[in-house]
Amino acid sequence: MSSTDIATQELKNPVDVAEYLFRRLHEVGIRAVHGVPGDYNLSALDYLPKCGLDWVGNCNELNAGYAADGYARVKGISAVITTFGVGELSALNAIAGAYSEFVPVVHIVGQPTTQSQKDGMLLHHTLGNGDFDVFTKMSAGISCYVAKLNDPHDAATLIDSAIRECWIRSRPVYVTLPTNMVYAKVNGDRLKTPIDLSSPKNDPEKEDYVVDVVLKYLHAAKNPVILVDACAIRHRALEEVHDLVEASGLPTFVTPMGKGAVNESHKNFGGVYAGDGSNAGVREVVESSDLILSIGAIKSDFNTAGFTYRIGQLKTIDFHSNYVRVRYSEYPDINMRGVLRKVVQQMNKLNVTAIPPINNALPQSEKTSTDQTITHAWLWPTVGQWLKENDIVLTETGTANFGIWDTRFPANVTAISQVLWGSIGYALGSCQGAALAAKELQNRRTILFIGDGSLQLTVQELSTMLRNKLNPIVFVICNEGYTIERYIHGWDATYNDIQPWDHVNIPKVFGATDGYKGYRIKTRDEVHKLFAEPSFNESDSLRLVELYMPRDDAPAALKLTADAAAARNK
Amino acid sequence: MSSTDIATQELKNPVDVAEYLFRRLHEVGIRAVHGVPGDYNLSALDYLPKCGLDWVGNCNELNAGYAADGYARVKGISAVITTFGVGELSALNAIAGAYSEFVPVVHIVGQPTTQSQKDGMLLHHTLGNGDFDVFTKMSAGISCYVAKLNDPHDAATLIDSAIRECWIRSRPVYVTLPTNMVYAKVNGDRLKTPIDLSSPKNDPEKEDYVVDVVLKYLHAAKNPVILVDACAIRHRALEEVHDLVEASGLPTFVTPMGKGAVNESHKNFGGVYAGDGSNAGVREVVESSDLILSIGAIKSDFNTAGFTYRIGQLKTIDFHSNYVRVRYSEYPDINMRGVLRKVVQQMNKLNVTAIPPINNALPQSEKTSTDQTITHAWLWPTVGQWLKENDIVLTETGTANFGIWDTRFPANVTAISQVLWGSIGYALGSCQGAALAAKELQNRRTILFIGDGSLQLTVQELSTMLRNKLNPIVFVICNEGYTIERYIHGWDATYNDIQPWDHVNIPKVFGATDGYKGYRIKTRDEVHKLFAEPSFNESDSLRLVELYMPRDDAPAALKLTADAAAARNK
Repeated sequence: MSSTDIATQELKNPVDVAEYLFRRLHEVGIRAVHGVPGDYNLSALDYLPKCGLDWVGNCNELNAGYAADGYARVKGISAVITTFGVGELSALNAIAGAYSEFVPVVHIVGQPTTQSQKDGMLLHHTLGNGDFDVFTKMSAGISCYVAKLNDPHDAATLIDSAIRECWIRSRPVYVTLPTNMVYAKVNGDRLKTPIDLSSPKNDPEKEDYVVDVVLKYLHAAKNPVILVDACAIRHRALEEVHDLVEASGLPTFVTPMGKGAVNESHKNFGGVYAGDGSNAGVREVVESSDLILSIGAIKSDFNTAGFTYRIGQLKTIDFHSNYVRVRYSEYPDINMRGVLRKVVQQMNKLNVTAIPPINNALPQSEKTSTDQTITHAWLWPTVGQWLKENDIVLTETGTANFGIWDTRFPANVTAISQVLWGSIGYALGSCQGAALAAKELQNRRTILFIGDGSLQLTVQELSTMLRNKLNPIVFVICNEGYTIERYIHGWDATYNDIQPWDHVNIPKVFGATDGYKGYRIKTRDEVHKLFAEPSFNESDSLRLVELYMPRDDAPAALKLTADAAAARNK
Repeated sequence: MSSTDIATQELKNPVDVAEYLFRRLHEVGIRAVHGVPGDYNLSALDYLPKCGLDWVGNCNELNAGYAADGYARVKGISAVITTFGVGELSALNAIAGAYSEFVPVVHIVGQPTTQSQKDGMLLHHTLGNGDFDVFTKMSAGISCYVAKLNDPHDAATLIDSAIRECWIRSRPVYVTLPTNMVYAKVNGDRLKTPIDLSSPKNDPEKEDYVVDVVLKYLHAAKNPVILVDACAIRHRALEEVHDLVEASGLPTFVTPMGKGAVNESHKNFGGVYAGDGSNAGVREVVESSDLILSIGAIKSDFNTAGFTYRIGQLKTIDFHSNYVRVRYSEYPDINMRGVLRKVVQQMNKLNVTAIPPINNALPQSEKTSTDQTITHAWLWPTVGQWLKENDIVLTETGTANFGIWDTRFPANVTAISQVLWGSIGYALGSCQGAALAAKELQNRRTILFIGDGSLQLTVQELSTMLRNKLNPIVFVICNEGYTIERYIHGWDATYNDIQPWDHVNIPKVFGATDGYKGYRIKTRDEVHKLFAEPSFNESDSLRLVELYMPRDDAPAALKLTADAAAARNK
């Protein structure tokens, strides 16, 4: 009897590593796993059904990674399975995006057996040099944790740590699963104790100290405001934020990456702040405030309309997942959630300034226009009039994710966009994952706005949506190419052009059934009619809308940001 | 006047870095550059036309990388341009494939300015942590040279070195081009001297020594044979190989990765050797030979039908680009080309065994069959009867690249397949690059065989073919999913299924004009009729053929190899 057999015998309730891993994924809320089959992961895939997990079966790994990102932004965490080398490398851009934007994705890579790796065998999907570690190293730089499941003795521990790190740090983790390890036995009794996903508690004395400092400045402030950004969402501080907004009555703004973080129909809500790219009137209020409670900020170029913030650090308190900064005083190793919770409990009455209400009214110029052209200035407030509570709205990098700054959301809208990483094509893949998550959660619509240029990168995920019977509404902005790039460089350059596609018929060649509906929309009246149509608003099937907009039109904020990017590129 | 201005002034014939780089690419034979525009590479793209380079404009970066790989396999070298982070990472799988399979691709990455990088700015397309080097490190492991163009003083030298290393080592190189460096000036006079692409000469005394040893065994051998593999192609030893075949009269075989290396209509040619997966009768001849001249071997699992070679090292002389091994004696740092050249000159008369002729006759069982089903056993010899001299034939990993072992090529056929790296979806992207190269070279047809599963990964490159008015013939083997994977694991598993597509109409939604023709072929008679149709054989436009084959049919060699892979995965 080998030592492994003895070890297995000693396990009271042995389960296979693949089953252990998948039951843990189920435990944290995952119900479907994205990915592409490959010979080094096939045997693992056999375990999905018995663990209550569906297999999505994406068309390629990059798209699977994007979809996992979208699924995680709705459900809290996700998993994607690829195969050694060829599969995992195709997913890297998506994983890097999740790392950049703090999205928890468990990336599981099927590998050759541990013995083949030790022997340095000349296998397919290798570089032919016997190095089986090179791809792990490539992923390590864009993962917050690497778990190499090479040994049954520590496999369960590594799996638990990987999932915990993924959740807590809200970033991708990388898990290798050699084909022989799929069947290796680990202690199934561990599964009786759920993985501890709670954040480390702040040191209470330190937390109280920081709360006192925050309150001191907050009470002294004459016209404080709240500014909510991406990390408030990604590091799960929204409950605290909502309570702060409600209890304080303070004027509340979001950054572009913070869209969806607060109830935009709340009376305190004042709109989007992004320096020169802010909603009308917002810049004046925020920049004249004497104290900005900045929650989860990511002050990237595209999130600040090209670094056009004019907020002094002397007027700022920054709340983050791992530190708080009050003016120039830094308090490391402290999580904003505990601090915000106590601030809400202890703040009492503050100086509250009234702010002008914000809504989806059209700008005056568009209101009086008789032009039927669908312009960005007209479109985005109009979309806001159409959206419903609980909608999930994805906007692709480009005109869409700048345009959405001008859309006021109903309550509980989830906004998904890759403002920092900005990989075009992302939003279509992400939409597949978000739509699947929406299907699990029920009663949420998934709506995507993507440009005709970006669509080309990942178009086959329309097929995955059809295969999984998902029902998102996909708006393809038809404006003849890469408009965001034209604004940065090469206005008339052919490299910013694209091959013209017949978008409405693409789902048909990808096997759409009768339920699918396509629309070609070229006027404002047609938009209104579409938005009013019941069969468009509610359907079990995919809907795709070609939305014709002028080639040279863009949201004002995009123009500003593109100018800044062009100047910086010189 | 800044020091940079003074340095520029001292240059007699200053040219911008981008122009220098692109003129060097033109010099080595590149006429079209693959890639996707992104804001960090746009200004560089402006320089392409004046340097005589076309811009392809792929749909996404992975496909662009695959296309560059295919272009390089026909033209000798290629270039692909991506943008920082999001673009370059999407291409990594393709670049790793080129590294694995020895394909020279210059990967140029547009980056933020050197100043932005020094300042660690929080820009889009970054991880948000100020680290601008993380992506370079990821590429370094799959590139044979990294050139970071951060300084005008060494930029020209680094460019020349990168292109030279790319060519000589026949592997990808990674070149960073920050947006400000696009316009930096370098010494244009350097362009008057072409880059030295010659391989380092062997030490003559050492070379003569090795030649003597080789000749000693060659003359002593009773029934020597030649076995040609991938590295003979990739390291440009085909002229020497052809002369060896011709002058020696020795029976000559190729491995699967060596397909296309020798003239398969030559009287010396005996077929494909791949251990148990060899063409009928070949294994017996090769394995009973007392001396195998093994040229450029890559003994990977898929290239050897699952490690089923039965050739002893005592009967082998291995010729490589950087060493020669005679039985167990190794001669490092010596290139096969010089050795082979001298062996040809000095070998005189050898013992030559007659071998049975090999042709595209059908196996007996298929000859007598009245079944109209298109089986693999029937298809691949039939394809061989149809192919013409100078055709370029691409086969996707799966049934196609195993099936092609049974196709006897006319002279000068180029075979493209990713037998070692084996990334599905590769062949469609590669086909775009190969078809573009064929268009430049004129009078070569480009023919692709790809499965309906693999096609889904990269389908949008059909659009790029249309955009660039390319005219390949694309056969889509319609057999309901990932057949190669079914043979390895999960025969009836849904994860090996795919969404059914209407392939013939895909080019239409991607903007095909009237010239495009699609075909649905379900019987052997229809295949014969198609192959005889002049408008199918010669056309300026894309042709796409749905070729219906049974879900559970596969070439015999694939079945063997899949069994071996399945056994090894346990």
